[in-house]
Amino acid sequence: MKYNLWFGIYKDGKVRKSENLKKSFITAHNPEPLPFSPADAGREVFGDDYYGILRKTAIEVCRELVEKELRREDRYVIALVRTLDELNSSINLLMEKLRDLKEIRESEVVEVFEQRIGELEKFKAEIEKEIEEVMRKIAPNVSEIVGEKIGARLLEKAGSLERLAEFPASTIQVIGAEKSLFKALSRIRRGKKAKVPKHGVIFQHPFIRNLPKKKRGKMARFIANKIAIAARIDYFKGELDEKLSEEVRKKYEQLSRK
Amino acid sequence: MKYNLWFGIYKDGKVRKSENLKKSFITAHNPEPLPFSPADAGREVFGDDYYGILRKTAIEVCRELVEKELRREDRYVIALVRTLDELNSSINLLMEKLRDLKEIRESEVVEVFEQRIGELEKFKAEIEKEIEEVMRKIAPNVSEIVGEKIGARLLEKAGSLERLAEFPASTIQVIGAEKSLFKALSRIRRGKKAKVPKHGVIFQHPFIRNLPKKKRGKMARFIANKIAIAARIDYFKGELDEKLSEEVRKKYEQLSRK
Repeated sequence: MKYNLWFGIYKDGKVRKSENLKKSFITAHNPEPLPFSPADAGREVFGDDYYGILRKTAIEVCRELVEKELRREDRYVIALVRTLDELNSSINLLMEKLRDLKEIRESEVVEVFEQRIGELEKFKAEIEKEIEEVMRKIAPNVSEIVGEKIGARLLEKAGSLERLAEFPASTIQVIGAEKSLFKALSRIRRGKKAKVPKHGVIFQHPFIRNLPKKKRGKMARFIANKIAIAARIDYFKGELDEKLSEEVRKKYEQLSRK
Repeated sequence: MKYNLWFGIYKDGKVRKSENLKKSFITAHNPEPLPFSPADAGREVFGDDYYGILRKTAIEVCRELVEKELRREDRYVIALVRTLDELNSSINLLMEKLRDLKEIRESEVVEVFEQRIGELEKFKAEIEKEIEEVMRKIAPNVSEIVGEKIGARLLEKAGSLERLAEFPASTIQVIGAEKSLFKALSRIRRGKKAKVPKHGVIFQHPFIRNLPKKKRGKMARFIANKIAIAARIDYFKGELDEKLSEEVRKKYEQLSRK
């Protein structure tokens, strides 16, 4: 009889040690209960280190699985944000058709159409809630500073939490304003005057939008700096640091007072 | 007290005769029951002709209302066809997003998304059924020859049943192939060779599609001719003439035998 142990293959009373403990740990399944003690077999292979090595391997495997799952979660948020965009544009276009139909006549089909669009609207709210929940989990610090909505949008534009964490603050500041940024840069390259955009997606943040035009650039730069720090903490699974958002609030109060 | 009668306004025992009987007929509403016989008042105005004029006016008003309603029905079909197009494109784009999400993870949100798209698909079938029903009513002859689906598409491209009835057969033949038609015409104008399209929307008809390429032009011309006749009958509210579709079938059999 052959058995898959987490540290190797057991056959005829002998163990062939696995070359990759993490791999064998994950694949160690047996259809029947073991007729011997795996710990005894393990101690024959590792000696007194057995439990130490088991513990280390288990923790490593666990961390990798969690990381993989979390990596998938930022892709999930990004796919949700893109779904939301598509839903918004579909709903708008379908609403137009509904208006055309309603103008011509009220019919059962028109009523059903209205219901269907209403359900899509409701579903939009469900997606928004899901985005909020996942963002709170995978990017609590970014969410705390700019909210889950803007945070998710930044993530979507960056392509992953990893890339967002790698971005310098100056890039984060203009995410979502790429078009006007590149337009300005190409004008400058041709020796012309141009205004470089001061904010992209983060402009939606009330702390920027509510300030007078002259102070928005300063605030945007400040927030982008804090987002850059927050994204790094989030990427490396740090705790929620409420100091960051407190600083942002203080800066806003200071700028709006002046 | 003032009363609105179908032939004028009654006040203080006198009638001021309406200048537009059809208009006053439609607007003759009174909040309270009349304390006198309108027929007596009418005979004072029209003499013994009263009932004859009432009958004539009623028939005319009725015909106009029906015509208006029918005119609205072709607009309704056109709006339904355009809704169907929009739905198709929305469903395709949303399906793409669903696939992206499903690849990343199965979640409750994804399940609801799948349901919503399924409901849109079902709603598409409802619209198709409605189009069929209205087409059978307002364009039975066109529907008999090319089916409700192609018929509705011709109507949509023409803009109204009236315009479709005015089109020569040669135009009907290439409805939906405008792009390649104008491309060909502009090449010919510049003295170049070009293939003028032989069929547009009607190419979807199995009688054209199932024939060998060389015979399709002949069949398309024949069907377009019959559609032109059918559209005129339909527009002027003629009966269903099954001879037309019979001739189309015979022509098809004849062409596919040769």
